[in-house]
Amino acid sequence: MTYEFLFGQISQKQSYLCVGLDTDIRKIPAHLQGLPDPVFEFNKQIIDATADYCVAYKPNIAFYEALGKQGWESLQKTIAYIPKTHFTIADAKRGDIGNTSGLYARTFFDPASSGLDFDAVTVAPYMGSDSVMPFLDFADKWVILLALTSNPGSTDFQRMNADGAPLFEQVLKTSSEWAGKDRLMYVVGATQAGEFQRIRQLVPEHFLLVPGVGAQGGSLEDVSRFGMNAHCGLLVNASRSIIYADNGSDFASHARQEACRLQQEMARYLDLYCR
Amino acid sequence: MTYEFLFGQISQKQSYLCVGLDTDIRKIPAHLQGLPDPVFEFNKQIIDATADYCVAYKPNIAFYEALGKQGWESLQKTIAYIPKTHFTIADAKRGDIGNTSGLYARTFFDPASSGLDFDAVTVAPYMGSDSVMPFLDFADKWVILLALTSNPGSTDFQRMNADGAPLFEQVLKTSSEWAGKDRLMYVVGATQAGEFQRIRQLVPEHFLLVPGVGAQGGSLEDVSRFGMNAHCGLLVNASRSIIYADNGSDFASHARQEACRLQQEMARYLDLYCR
Repeated sequence: MTYEFLFGQISQKQSYLCVGLDTDIRKIPAHLQGLPDPVFEFNKQIIDATADYCVAYKPNIAFYEALGKQGWESLQKTIAYIPKTHFTIADAKRGDIGNTSGLYARTFFDPASSGLDFDAVTVAPYMGSDSVMPFLDFADKWVILLALTSNPGSTDFQRMNADGAPLFEQVLKTSSEWAGKDRLMYVVGATQAGEFQRIRQLVPEHFLLVPGVGAQGGSLEDVSRFGMNAHCGLLVNASRSIIYADNGSDFASHARQEACRLQQEMARYLDLYCR
Repeated sequence: MTYEFLFGQISQKQSYLCVGLDTDIRKIPAHLQGLPDPVFEFNKQIIDATADYCVAYKPNIAFYEALGKQGWESLQKTIAYIPKTHFTIADAKRGDIGNTSGLYARTFFDPASSGLDFDAVTVAPYMGSDSVMPFLDFADKWVILLALTSNPGSTDFQRMNADGAPLFEQVLKTSSEWAGKDRLMYVVGATQAGEFQRIRQLVPEHFLLVPGVGAQGGSLEDVSRFGMNAHCGLLVNASRSIIYADNGSDFASHARQEACRLQQEMARYLDLYCR
């Protein structure tokens, strides 16, 4: 998917919502558990219920891998089911030496190899440029690099003073030379709202994928005020607060309500801050 | 597997060789390609040929994931086939927020969930403590944390001066408080031989998993001289130089010869430096 198409979808839907498909077999409503593929059935209903209000879906790969071969099958069916209008992110946090990253790129970007055809994959920066570049060899596919994450452990190394600036700033500076706004995004946690202005100085045009609104407690308003640019530049993810809004037989309509609520809030912020 | 059992195996076999199962379907000998599961058949023959000379196997997860569901099945069969005397490492470079790392831990450590039962998994440190701790909740399982990797991109961030010391040293210092030598190892590339003495000052007792001997050009002698401790403290990985030693119908006996050659060299270094 291109930058322009993605921004077009955001403008049209007045939404920069990404729905995180962190689908945990242990949390799926009871009435689905007897079906042959409860994870896919759950995702299918979540996608049907939320597609009007979001522009992206982000399956968290751990939740599928934990189920082995069956999880992989559920993931393949989920990706095939998501409408082509929606940006798809493999939240996988991969990154390895060049030849291995090349294989991970095939995993997520080459359906003839793995059965998966994502638009983007999240990548950890620790191993440097040659661990990231192989993902960029695939046309129209995206790398979403970890910069400043939403979790408590983000203080352990990401904020260390590295050659005169916090490590996450060095990651932004160095990696923004590897690819432009058309191929590269960054993960910045919503719990880090105080850093968005500084981050926008360093990468004014790149999209930021922002987890941590919802269950993790980040503020959508702060993220939008300080992180938005003239092409929105944000994909804000919510997972648990949408997909587990309710765990009864009516879970999908509760998910739809929560996605709609977030979309309406986002429409206000687009009006206020997208400039 | 316990630290004591692993060291016992090393002493008994006079080997600290780890065979990397980076099995690329495109490089498997032609006569195996028509079989129902060529990747597993290849691995089975490699394991039969090398088990006498190595103490560990390290499937590189990317190579299996790139084949989708079929790859996952080959991986499950491979892990089930490896003798229980051998330490098994999922080279996966995972790491995510706590609840997600918990799912990755189930993926690699909980056979009832995923069908896999590895002894250890490689983890990237960028997201900090809560991305690592969930892997340590599984008794007798190990985390192998990236410290200083073997690839060119290791210079991008790992060697930055972070609060007064190279970032990889900060990773060693901080993480060595999370777990002791019985549960935690570190990845240090063989191409970084100049750093082994300093690393041994910081983590004298932990095992180091050392890739980069062979195709990547690191020196086994330098690694052994500067990295070994009184309990060996090294697992040296070779992948391509063993498993692709030959690509004819006789590939397994060539792999065995190369594994034997490395084991004999290791026996010398154990005699010289394991003290």
